[in-house]
Amino acid sequence: MPKIAVPFGDDVSAFETEKGKLVVLKTDMLVDKTDAPPGMNLWQTARKAVVMNVSDFAAKGVKPAAVLVALGLPRNITKKDVEEIGSGLNAGAHEYGTYIIGGDTGEASDLIIAVSLFGLAAKDALMLRSGAKPGDVIAVTGLFGKTSAGLRILVNDLKAPKKIRKTLIDSVLMPTARLKEGLALVETGAVNASIDSSDGLAWSLHEIARSSRVGISIDLLPTAEQCSTFAVANKLDSAELTLYGGEEYELVLTVKPRMWKKAQEAVENVGGSLFKIGKVTSEKSVVLATDGKRISIEARGYEHFKSR
Amino acid sequence: MPKIAVPFGDDVSAFETEKGKLVVLKTDMLVDKTDAPPGMNLWQTARKAVVMNVSDFAAKGVKPAAVLVALGLPRNITKKDVEEIGSGLNAGAHEYGTYIIGGDTGEASDLIIAVSLFGLAAKDALMLRSGAKPGDVIAVTGLFGKTSAGLRILVNDLKAPKKIRKTLIDSVLMPTARLKEGLALVETGAVNASIDSSDGLAWSLHEIARSSRVGISIDLLPTAEQCSTFAVANKLDSAELTLYGGEEYELVLTVKPRMWKKAQEAVENVGGSLFKIGKVTSEKSVVLATDGKRISIEARGYEHFKSR
Repeated sequence: MPKIAVPFGDDVSAFETEKGKLVVLKTDMLVDKTDAPPGMNLWQTARKAVVMNVSDFAAKGVKPAAVLVALGLPRNITKKDVEEIGSGLNAGAHEYGTYIIGGDTGEASDLIIAVSLFGLAAKDALMLRSGAKPGDVIAVTGLFGKTSAGLRILVNDLKAPKKIRKTLIDSVLMPTARLKEGLALVETGAVNASIDSSDGLAWSLHEIARSSRVGISIDLLPTAEQCSTFAVANKLDSAELTLYGGEEYELVLTVKPRMWKKAQEAVENVGGSLFKIGKVTSEKSVVLATDGKRISIEARGYEHFKSR
Repeated sequence: MPKIAVPFGDDVSAFETEKGKLVVLKTDMLVDKTDAPPGMNLWQTARKAVVMNVSDFAAKGVKPAAVLVALGLPRNITKKDVEEIGSGLNAGAHEYGTYIIGGDTGEASDLIIAVSLFGLAAKDALMLRSGAKPGDVIAVTGLFGKTSAGLRILVNDLKAPKKIRKTLIDSVLMPTARLKEGLALVETGAVNASIDSSDGLAWSLHEIARSSRVGISIDLLPTAEQCSTFAVANKLDSAELTLYGGEEYELVLTVKPRMWKKAQEAVENVGGSLFKIGKVTSEKSVVLATDGKRISIEARGYEHFKSR
């Protein structure tokens, strides 16, 4: 077995084809009963299957070159359903400048969409989970909690004020991968570690801490305004929604402190945002330190909702 | 969208990374209820998921460099089951000189094993379905019908003489991909078209004919002796078992007539066999021409057995 170019457990796998050149690969399977919440149509489900894979490439700073799809289709599916799935897959691929080059279909009890991505990268350019260093800035590409709220509306029938309801639901039904942000950041050389937040912000922070053998201290919880409003309306804890949600495809990064400006500008130049939320420590703990208090952030991830 | 290096519908997909150099990709999903017959254990099922993908690479003459696996696991699966699956996947990969570099697991109603393969190839070296020319020799890497018989024993409880029963069942439970044969053949430059026979011999012949816009005339039906014995014992038609079976991973090839010897020697040098069974014609028909009779070979493929 050749030396692996990317540690097991990172967001992607890679194979060194010649010195310093990597083929980057990723496969991730969407199963409708745990990954497609009530209210998500087939087009959106298929698009999401692509987006969730692209998000992992975004976190590593790798452009997806091509997509393969293996479909498991329930027996009662119609031709129109299959067309909707095909259209959603193509839409997801085109949105991120890539395209579907092959696949396979078979029969299954659930709707299964197994997407494989392939891309090329220079070995030293990959943003791994394991490179964080004490002193690094912890940064995120967006604010959190909208999908937590949206899933509670779709799955648990919670209510939301009318003016934010659609935004919260759309954050679940039409997720966005931060590909342009990831590609801009990898160019800067400013990022030491990176992961996407599909399993929740808390989980992502713990993954970086564990893989890089460092600690993390968060001083600003990146809660989206709509999440706060939803939390107040439903008497929920907005910190819980922010930290322990999921299906949210922001990037969580550690940035060399002297290159913070460069990183932020690079993201803003492609129309994105980069928020500073804390720093990497040498303490082997992941804490929220605000208002003079230190609260431990639990190593708890997003749990897929169960069958409807 | 870049020009595709391999036509849609061939056994693999490919992406041209630089002039003449291809990254070859394949994804194929095994679903236990249609792909794992009664009697196939989890280790064998997982191994088969790898073998069926390797077989497509074998048909194109491409060495698999790495494997990715996305698993969908039923909720009642045990830790021991998952270990058995992992062990079967690794066994399949090692058997063909490759290894698993990444994957994903989730919950599904069926056991789902979506395998993706990746490899590298020179563009002009790929053996496609579409290159057959009138006058080519039709060749196969083994004799057919054992899996047809084996599936009838496992799925339909047919009887078989004791001395061949295990051979027939093993042909289903422990299939072999003809990778060394495919790699040896691609080196010779003798092959004009190639496909594997996973959907049955008849289907493979029709696929080559359709993709290459040629006809095929078979003068020797490559029936395995054990298949004939099984057919006699069960009053079945051995030609039917030979032509319209499936889950059989032989290669079906068209070879330049002047290079036949070279092709056969190359396969024998790696311990395989190459049988001449007919020739490519310009007639746009696929026929069996033996004993002075011409019978049309139907464009009918292997139908996966339904749920147990």
